[in-house]
Amino acid sequence: MPIITLTTDFGNDDPFDGVIKGVILNICPQANIVDLTHNISPQDIYQANFLLDSCYQYFPKKTIHVCVVDPGVGTKRRPILIQTKGYFFIGPDNGVFTSIIKKEKNIKIIELTEKKYWLKNVSQTFHGRDIFSPVAAHLASGVNVKNFGKSINKENLVKLQTTKPIKNKNRITGIIQYIDHFGNLITNIPNDFTYKKLTGKVKDIDFQGLVWCFALGNSKKLTAIHGSSGFIELFINKGNAAKITGIKTRDKVDVKYNL
Amino acid sequence: MPIITLTTDFGNDDPFDGVIKGVILNICPQANIVDLTHNISPQDIYQANFLLDSCYQYFPKKTIHVCVVDPGVGTKRRPILIQTKGYFFIGPDNGVFTSIIKKEKNIKIIELTEKKYWLKNVSQTFHGRDIFSPVAAHLASGVNVKNFGKSINKENLVKLQTTKPIKNKNRITGIIQYIDHFGNLITNIPNDFTYKKLTGKVKDIDFQGLVWCFALGNSKKLTAIHGSSGFIELFINKGNAAKITGIKTRDKVDVKYNL
Amino acid sequence: MPIITLTTDFGNDDPFDGVIKGVILNICPQANIVDLTHNISPQDIYQANFLLDSCYQYFPKKTIHVCVVDPGVGTKRRPILIQTKGYFFIGPDNGVFTSIIKKEKNIKIIELTEKKYWLKNVSQTFHGRDIFSPVAAHLASGVNVKNFGKSINKENLVKLQTTKPIKNKNRITGIIQYIDHFGNLITNIPNDFTYKKLTGKVKDIDFQGLVWCFALGNSKKLTAIHGSSGFIELFINKGNAAKITGIKTRDKVDVKYNL
Repeated sequence: MPIITLTTDFGNDDPFDGVIKGVILNICPQANIVDLTHNISPQDIYQANFLLDSCYQYFPKKTIHVCVVDPGVGTKRRPILIQTKGYFFIGPDNGVFTSIIKKEKNIKIIELTEKKYWLKNVSQTFHGRDIFSPVAAHLASGVNVKNFGKSINKENLVKLQTTKPIKNKNRITGIIQYIDHFGNLITNIPNDFTYKKLTGKVKDIDFQGLVWCFALGNSKKLTAIHGSSGFIELFINKGNAAKITGIKTRDKVDVKYNL
Repeated sequence: MPIITLTTDFGNDDPFDGVIKGVILNICPQANIVDLTHNISPQDIYQANFLLDSCYQYFPKKTIHVCVVDPGVGTKRRPILIQTKGYFFIGPDNGVFTSIIKKEKNIKIIELTEKKYWLKNVSQTFHGRDIFSPVAAHLASGVNVKNFGKSINKENLVKLQTTKPIKNKNRITGIIQYIDHFGNLITNIPNDFTYKKLTGKVKDIDFQGLVWCFALGNSKKLTAIHGSSGFIELFINKGNAAKITGIKTRDKVDVKYNL
Repeated sequence: MPIITLTTDFGNDDPFDGVIKGVILNICPQANIVDLTHNISPQDIYQANFLLDSCYQYFPKKTIHVCVVDPGVGTKRRPILIQTKGYFFIGPDNGVFTSIIKKEKNIKIIELTEKKYWLKNVSQTFHGRDIFSPVAAHLASGVNVKNFGKSINKENLVKLQTTKPIKNKNRITGIIQYIDHFGNLITNIPNDFTYKKLTGKVKDIDFQGLVWCFALGNSKKLTAIHGSSGFIELFINKGNAAKITGIKTRDKVDVKYNL
């Protein structure tokens, strides 16, 4: 069964994702539709970019990843389809695929222009339902990538300014790029297993690390650990670090490695 | 694979919908179960009626739509199965299918009375698990509609008093019938593409429109747009209109079309 | 299609469960993955134990139930696989399967040690993704239980101290063990259909019962009913009893049966 994943900012209250599944199954009854998440913060294309990049490679080859975080829906922003060596990505050309495009070589990009693969009536507010999902379903049914529109150049795509950590001797400065459901603070500083010990600060809050597992963290103070998404995480053992410290996404993180 | 959708007020915290899926798969292992939404406001049969009506036609023909918004569970309210030209609906006879019954011609209605298609032990508080889902699963497995109980008349069904907009020359008065996750305010005034310009008021808050897409809306003031569910929507560009304005479901909307 | 259910404390905001589905489908493309719930309170192994126990038997025989409520991830707590007569359970050996182990006879338990069934890179913070789901997927693909590790003894498993109600003549003292989305208060006192009438107290709040269905409950006062999970529930008709009364999980419940 072809797999189609959904990454959106729809939340869980409305039936928007349910309707999208109806549209897909109408065209491709054998599709296996997986919710990656529907809880991207409304219109937050940076968050969508980060989460898609963290997750897409865990899926089987040929998976079609659809992203509907689309504040520019109905404007001239282009609907696109990206084919990499292993995967397909469908969504708006607004930067949500920035990290994937940087990472993947040999990609093919199509601007979706062929209306026969869309729903008959296209609204100006819900291209997730009217364009992206029917295209995903036709692709899953075997339609060739080149049939969906005209090829465009990688250089022409909208790209986000992503923040890279800055390294200076044994110091690294980064940011908090994501906060998860447990209140764990995921930085943009990659795990580096050559380091064992570090100290650091977010605003005026100190942290120490690295510990091997959550249970070894301090239950009152911020502790650092190698996170499961490939970046250093800050946490409080059995506590919600975000709530307790008030630290927010995009706050600056200063790390000092004790080599 | 036969498709069964679920529309409930269970929320996402409890395993009620998970259990329903277990019950269905026990009877019909090949069923493809799709969550339409589990976040109908508790006991809100008006909201369930609106959302079901907006969504059911996006699914493939023969889809079985199960609705469990059922404050009268355990009372004499009847469990019913409705067959329309294209779809099946299963749930309580409490009005949740009002708009569908109005719209669809040639419908067949069965009161669910045949206990051999229910779970063995029927609780008095969870017919979603004990009656509606096993019936849906048996139907998906090929059991004929007439086997589930006795035929009843359309006229005998419970119907909700739904509010229709009132038109008077170039004025229309309606209500806010639904507020989505983004805080967009969906009225009960149908999109009408012969109109281009309008002004209006909800309580003492003015709005203008129509704009072509969200990005063209004002980021401080309420703006009107043709919504994707077929009704005029009011929104604030990149803002949560419901939170910012305090407008609630069932608030009155006055529109003046500038023809 | 083999069925794998997921019970976690991931919440619905992050793509953790989405990634797990990718991992499973990579190994076992034909798996039918069902979310039981992702909203166990963070690290609440008591709640996980209660909900798993209430739900697992509604699924078809051979269903694989995966539980990832795992505050001890990365410590020496063992990853385990339990085979009962009808089902499989995979998760941490931290007590989440306590009630199932008590209820089921003839169980086989394996400590997961065979790394060839895990992801290549095992993080110290996300064994749900790196160990439990790949093992579940290999099991669903037909790998024999004994291949995953070495057999261990039932007596060696971590068990939770669960609170049983205390009976004394016509009085029973129990606790609130779970509060659902509707605010209904589920006690740990089993339904007993030989009783018809009871009165009781939680803290200083009185309740009466039993009523046949929710609609017969008082809309201002707490009422008792035989709950659908097999335990006495306290509710307020069309109201949120938990919010209105302030009653919390683990509060004491005193019941007096009027025989």
